[in-house]
Parts: sequence; C-alpha cells; structure tokens
Amino acid sequence: PDSFFLIAGPCVVEGEALVMGVAEKVSGICKNLGIPYVFKSSYKKANRTSIDSFTGIGDLNALQLLKQVKETYHIPVVSDIHAHEEAALAAEYVDMLQIPAFLSRQTDLLEAAARTGKTVNIKKGQFLSGPSMKFAADKVKHAGNEKVILTERGNTFGYQDLVVDFRNIPWMKEHGVPVVMDCTHSLQQPNQTSGVTGGNPELIGTIAKAAIATGADGLFIETHPNPAIAKSDGANMLKLDYLEPLLEQLVKIREAIIST
Amino acid sequence: PDSFFLIAGPCVVEGEALVMGVAEKVSGICKNLGIPYVFKSSYKKANRTSIDSFTGIGDLNALQLLKQVKETYHIPVVSDIHAHEEAALAAEYVDMLQIPAFLSRQTDLLEAAARTGKTVNIKKGQFLSGPSMKFAADKVKHAGNEKVILTERGNTFGYQDLVVDFRNIPWMKEHGVPVVMDCTHSLQQPNQTSGVTGGNPELIGTIAKAAIATGADGLFIETHPNPAIAKSDGANMLKLDYLEPLLEQLVKIREAIIST
Amino acid sequence: PDSFFLIAGPCVVEGEALVMGVAEKVSGICKNLGIPYVFKSSYKKANRTSIDSFTGIGDLNALQLLKQVKETYHIPVVSDIHAHEEAALAAEYVDMLQIPAFLSRQTDLLEAAARTGKTVNIKKGQFLSGPSMKFAADKVKHAGNEKVILTERGNTFGYQDLVVDFRNIPWMKEHGVPVVMDCTHSLQQPNQTSGVTGGNPELIGTIAKAAIATGADGLFIETHPNPAIAKSDGANMLKLDYLEPLLEQLVKIREAIIST
Amino acid sequence: PDSFFLIAGPCVVEGEALVMGVAEKVSGICKNLGIPYVFKSSYKKANRTSIDSFTGIGDLNALQLLKQVKETYHIPVVSDIHAHEEAALAAEYVDMLQIPAFLSRQTDLLEAAARTGKTVNIKKGQFLSGPSMKFAADKVKHAGNEKVILTERGNTFGYQDLVVDFRNIPWMKEHGVPVVMDCTHSLQQPNQTSGVTGGNPELIGTIAKAAIATGADGLFIETHPNPAIAKSDGANMLKLDYLEPLLEQLVKIREAIIST
Repeated sequence: PDSFFLIAGPCVVEGEALVMGVAEKVSGICKNLGIPYVFKSSYKKANRTSIDSFTGIGDLNALQLLKQVKETYHIPVVSDIHAHEEAALAAEYVDMLQIPAFLSRQTDLLEAAARTGKTVNIKKGQFLSGPSMKFAADKVKHAGNEKVILTERGNTFGYQDLVVDFRNIPWMKEHGVPVVMDCTHSLQQPNQTSGVTGGNPELIGTIAKAAIATGADGLFIETHPNPAIAKSDGANMLKLDYLEPLLEQLVKIREAIIST
Repeated sequence: PDSFFLIAGPCVVEGEALVMGVAEKVSGICKNLGIPYVFKSSYKKANRTSIDSFTGIGDLNALQLLKQVKETYHIPVVSDIHAHEEAALAAEYVDMLQIPAFLSRQTDLLEAAARTGKTVNIKKGQFLSGPSMKFAADKVKHAGNEKVILTERGNTFGYQDLVVDFRNIPWMKEHGVPVVMDCTHSLQQPNQTSGVTGGNPELIGTIAKAAIATGADGLFIETHPNPAIAKSDGANMLKLDYLEPLLEQLVKIREAIIST
Repeated sequence: PDSFFLIAGPCVVEGEALVMGVAEKVSGICKNLGIPYVFKSSYKKANRTSIDSFTGIGDLNALQLLKQVKETYHIPVVSDIHAHEEAALAAEYVDMLQIPAFLSRQTDLLEAAARTGKTVNIKKGQFLSGPSMKFAADKVKHAGNEKVILTERGNTFGYQDLVVDFRNIPWMKEHGVPVVMDCTHSLQQPNQTSGVTGGNPELIGTIAKAAIATGADGLFIETHPNPAIAKSDGANMLKLDYLEPLLEQLVKIREAIIST
Repeated sequence: PDSFFLIAGPCVVEGEALVMGVAEKVSGICKNLGIPYVFKSSYKKANRTSIDSFTGIGDLNALQLLKQVKETYHIPVVSDIHAHEEAALAAEYVDMLQIPAFLSRQTDLLEAAARTGKTVNIKKGQFLSGPSMKFAADKVKHAGNEKVILTERGNTFGYQDLVVDFRNIPWMKEHGVPVVMDCTHSLQQPNQTSGVTGGNPELIGTIAKAAIATGADGLFIETHPNPAIAKSDGANMLKLDYLEPLLEQLVKIREAIIST
C-alpha cells in the first residue's frame, strides 16, 4: 500500500466531548493526507501501576461512545482488552481488539480475541524479541483468525527507561503481518517512585520518523487536545495541534521509502 | 524466624506419582533441616511461549492432587492463577495463590486473589523494579488482605537472558512483606528461536546462596526427579537428588547471617 | 547542509589494492550523489577481543597508504587512535582522528587528539548515554579544539547484543556538534564464546535509514568488496556493491526530512 | 585458602594523613580477622566523567605514599594504570597493577602490565560477560605472566544504573584465576546529568555478602573515614567505621561456604 495507516486517539475514553472532538479532527487530517485512520481509545484501564489511578467511565458507556465515533465518522475503532471474557462484548462495538504488551503471551486471551473474528493487534511485550512474537501471532492464527497486527512498543532498558529497537520492524514483518510502531508507550519511563509512569513526548517525532523509514506499516500515536489534563498517559500523549505537521513530514518519508 | 522457608515442587502437575513422590521426598528433607515447606506445582499453564506446549492434565484433576498432597503430608500448597475468575476455585484447594510475573500489575487478578483470604505470592515482573512492587503489594492490601509475599525472578537483560539484581531483596523487604527468590525462573533464557525457553540449572546454587546471604526470607525452587523428561521448564528444574545437599549449605549460610 | 556526509572504507588497512580500490569506487559514487565523503580505515587495531586477531600491516605503512588515498582522490581521511602518544604521528597523515568507544572518557587521549587541531570524532561508549557525551566533547573543546563530531554506535543490551537508541541523535545534536551513526559497529554481537564478534549486516540499511530520518548529520559505514575474506569486522561490513543503491535511498529520505 | 582477601583503601591518594590512617586501621582489622589485605588507592585519575574533576596530587608524590604504606604496614599495595607507558613506573612502587574496566580489552596496556611481572587485576568491562574475560586474562598470560586476577564490577543496565550478575563469579572462576567482587563501583549510578557519578553505598553489604556466598576469592571495597568529603567516588565509598562489622559477618558466611 502507498500510505502507512494511523491508529490514534486519546489514551482512555474520558467522555463524549473528548472522543468526538479528537475523532473529528484526526479523521479530517487523515482524509486530507490519504492516511487510513483507526480511532483508538481504551474503554477501561486494568493494569495501572497504582490502584489510585483513573480506570474509566464505565465499560458500556465507553464502548457506546466508541461505536458513536465509528458511526459518525465512518472509521474503524480499536480498544484493548485484558481478560478473555471481555473479548466478545468488546467485539460488538469495535473493529479491532488490542492485546496489552504485558499480556501478549496469554493464550486464553489471544484465543478469545481471535474467535471474535475481529483484527487482533498484539503489542510486543517489553521483555520479548521481535522474532519471538511469531509465537503470539501463531496463537491467533491457529484459532482461525489471520487478521493479526504486531506492534512494537519498546523494550525494558534498565528499570526506568525503555529503548526502541528498530531491528524489530523488519524482524516482525518477516512474520507476514502488518507491523505498527507505538510512538507513545515506547517513550514511557516506567518504575518511577511516584507510581506514575513518566515520559518524553518531545521525542514522538523521532520514533515516528525512524519507524516509517524502516518500513513500519502503521503508527500508533495517542493524542489529546491538552495532555497536561489527561486522565492517563498524559506524560506521553502528543498534543493534538502537533499531529498534522508531523504526519505531513511522515508522508514525505514514506514516499521516499516506497519510491525505491 | 530462624530458618528461611522453601516453596518447591515440580513445575506443573503432571500426575499423581510425580507430585506425591516429590512431596514425600522434599517434606522429609525439610523436616530434618527445620525448614518450613510449601509444596508448589501449577495446575495449569496459560502463558507458554508456543501453543504446542503442554498445558496440564485438567484443572480439577490437578487441584485435587494438590489437596491430596496437602492432606497426606500436612504441608501447605501453592499454585498460580492467570485470570481473576480462577481465584475462588483454586482457593478451595490451595493455601497460597501465586501471581505470574507477566500479570503482576493486573488489578482485577490481584484483587480477586486478595479476596480469597489466602496468602498471595506476587512474582516481580521481569520489567519491574523492586521498589515499584510496592504498588502491586498495595493492590492486595487495599483489598483487605495483608498476607502478601513478593518473589524476585530476574530482570530482562537483552532478549535472551535474565539477570538477578540482588538489590531487590533489601528493596522489597522495605515493603514489610516476606521476600522470596525464585531460583528456577530467574535462570531462564527467554526468546529462544525454538519457542522453548532455555536455562542454566547448574547455577541454581549460586542464585540460592546469594539470596540467603542477602536476607531472602524464602526460596522458590522447582525440582523434579528427572528434569530431562519434565513436561515444562525442564531446562531449569533442579534434579531432586541435588536438593538436600544444597539446602544443608543454605542452612549454614542462614545461620551465619542471623548470628550477627 | 543539504546532504549528510559519509565516513566509509574497509575496517583496517589490509593493503594498497584494497584501500585504493575502495576509495576510488566510493568517492565516485559520492561525487555522483553529492555526498561529502571521508575515507576511513584503521592503521592499527589495539583492542581486539582475542590476542590472535589481525592487528595491521605496520603503522607507517598503513598511514602512508591513507595519505596516498587522500592525495589521489582529494578526499579527507580518518583513522582511530588508542593512546595519547599516537595522536601527533597520526595527525601528520590524516584529517580526522577517531576515538574508540571504549576510550571515549580517557582524558589524556581526548586532549592529545584535540591538540593536533584535527577534527576529533568521538565514538559514544556502549555504556554511555547521549546526554553524557557532552562531557567527552567538552574535554576536546576545553583543549582548544572546537572541531568535534559525536558518533552513536549502539548500547550494551545484555551480553551478546547491542541496541541503537535513536533518541541519542537529537540528544547529541543538542551538544552543538555534528552527529554520526555508525551503521557497522552498532550491529555487532559482542561476547561470543568464539572470541570473534558476530554481526547482522543485513540490517545496515535499517540502521542507516532510521539515522537519516531522525536527523543524523553523517553516516559511518565500513565496506569491503568481499566481507567474507576481510581481516577484521567481516561480520558487519557492507558488501561494496550494495553501497550505491543504499545511498540513493538515503538521499531521498534526507530530501524528505529537510524539505519540511 | 580459608579466608577471602580484601583489596581496600580510599579511591584516590588525597594525601599522607588519609592513606596512612586508612592503612593502619584496615590492616589492624584484617590482622584480627585473618584476612589477607592489599591496600588500594589510585595515584592518578584519568577517566573522570567531567574535566573539572580532581585527578590527583602528582604521580610521583602519590606513588611514594603507596610505597610508604607498603613499608610501614608490611602489606602489598595496588594502584591502577591507564596507559601502557605507566606500567613500568608504577611497578617500581606497587605490588599489583589494576586495569580499569573501560580498558580491559586494550592489548598494549595488558601486555605492558604483564611484562612488569606484578600481579595484574583486570576489572571486567561493564559491557563484557564473565566468560569473555578469558580473552583478557589470556592476553596477560600470553605475555608470560600467570598472576592474573579478574574483578567483577557490574554491568550496564540502562543508562543510569549498573547491575551485578553473580553468575559471573563461578563463570570467571572457570578461567582458573582468583575472582574479586568490586563492591564499590558496582553500585555506581553512571551518566548523571550533573557529570558526577552517583551511588547506593547502603547496599555495599548486600553486594559483599552475595559475593562471598557465591564463592568470590576476594573483595574490593573503597573506604574513607568521611566519604562526604572524599575527592572522588564519595557517593560509593564505605564509611571506615562500618568496615569491621561487615567483615566479621562476611567471615562467618565464608566459614559456612567452605565447611561444606
């Protein structure tokens, strides 16, 4: 395909105004640039570091808002699930199910996601290599679902840092599935003593450009009109105003890549 | 307490002869040496690398065998759970619930384990620091259960190796809970191209001795009469014949530690 | 500047035919593509893993050949030095002195290189961060030489692997000096039991494209007509025939980057 | 041998009162405990992070003070060298030459140290594995000197932390040489933005106990009466008052180890 695709949206469904606002803005930008767009937002958060963190507005409320995004803007939507019994319900509302990195080896979860028939986007564990993600992809395929995407999101690099190993882009493409770079969570600074994961959002462009240059098929970018007040992952989301100029530059890099 | 405690047994419940045989042998050794003993074996395996791996003999069969061990040898038993809905059932059979390392931040799972009232042994994620395990322990405590154990099992060190950071022993003891060293899984060699995790079992003694010397309250050691034919983790289990001489040496190191 | 620059050549000066052949070929390619070119080859090798490895054809012979390259093809040449007393001699023959990664904090060496007045290209230690390379660059500047280049060459990632952290490109550019990506040594596989460092040369393009996309000012690529018979670093050198098509693609990515 | 040996002293020769005071105190403690003692202090510092750091009181002054320690207290002394031409001079004053970790692969340096006939203590590079240190030891042996010691000092673990891998104790003992644990530098926190390496001195006992328990032949501990005012490595030196109780405990662990 000529363009890369974009999975983007606010980290978690905070409310209607936010999700509809972001969806309208980003779908407009992507239409102009010819970028296929999938709206992403989590309908619940189950694996926050600290028990005091925000976990959502209620599952059905959030899923209903995702459906509203889908129907209003005619774009596919994706959300993540954390337990096998969530798969069937989520699949009634969304087009793609995302498997969190920590859970990327949980057979029950992968199989339940697979059986919905929806596309399954598996985040690569921070402790896993690109080549070993073949085994995760195969768990979905063996359950009868060939629609698998693998997403790089950085590797453990000491306790409080992640590093993106771009060798994983070509290595995971060898598994015969689209490969996405998560430009948001790969910049996390985990294990902070505060219990709140930190970040380096000024480097989102660096990660995104390297990903497109090395052949990534898609990008995952969490974005928010005002990350400073976001209820989750504010430390790493891209300010919405910065998205369009970044995508314009990425489109040019993509053109350079596919022209040769 | 004067002695450390031991959590030991075959990785997975393969059948009656195996679990009863190991329980008899190890409980005898531990009685002689004055070591409190908890029998460990998994009643199912949900997160194997490859979908072709052995996952168990059936949940109820395996849980029933764990109960038989408990009643025959008058020792507590522990098994691991992988989803919140497994907690209540497993708790009918075992005395301690173990949370796998990959799942050590899953709030639903930790809370479900906590609500059973059983002791909850949380393995430290390969991507987590000892200090950050406070947040995992607190999820159990906030659910009303103070019986928490934290277990070190090594940290990601490149793709195909783990390293044990013994600083985590004193760091996790600061959380006010017993700290265990998993001498088996901390020697894993993950992400092998074969899809089968490798190991270094000749170093079990090295890890165990350093753990006792640095103040670990307990040790976790998977053991099997013949690791070469074990159905899971054969690459890292201690041959049962080697357990007694190792424990004798560890008892002496423990005495050196507590005498000062 | 519009183009990135290229530092390239065979790892070590093996003999006249090799260095002159590579210099002619690469200088021709670079002239066509408008890429400033610096010929690189080591006149001796002092830090091989094993004492049995090839270390050179004699210092003066090798330096003389570097001068011949410079005068024949009218291109600057660079070689690495390993001890402060080598600086003055090498500077009589070459235009740029390169400081090996392991030695990037050796004050005596950096100051001796600085005092020659030649450009000093400091490789980032595998154990150092991009931000901390400011201190290495400052050692050269404080000795009165502002002509400093910093080169990323990968970070320790477990014992037998390196990972390139592309955040170091923008981080090192903040030090106000040109930043180069070493696409050869960053793919090394160190600590092999054979005593011979391994590699992944099929990924040279991946590293190079990501570097240009993230703003690197230059690339360092060791190349050889037949890496399989090279006397050093054969595991990672680019086959000379592959250089031109790679550079053509990199020029297009560079144009995409600077056009926005 | 029954006891482990101790290499200890202040990081750098700051002046006569300091080195003589530490030597008197530590040699007395070690005599009482039956621990062979080697006095350590650096006569110069060549690889400080920042050019503004203290580098010494003058080479000959410092070497003369080391000789005074040796003759007054009848103990061997050790210092580190950073370039091959320093070996012969230093060897006139000290009994053991130490090779810094960053320089542990520099053939010229290892050979020059070997040719003095003094014991050569090679620190393991933060980027090297224990097995690969065989190649460094062999460079000394091939130069005709069998008196080699290998010292573990931690491995790169992200940018700002080191981790000690105790597997390296048995792995390096396989090379047939005494193995030492450096309890000081293995607790460094490198790459701090201040340009001053940080530390965790409260964990010195943790590292030392694990080292003795896993079979280390010797310990390296930098100590100072008042680390807060030390001119180098203050962040990691053990306060001199804490040394005796620590050694007493280590002697007991050693007895537990060798009794079986």
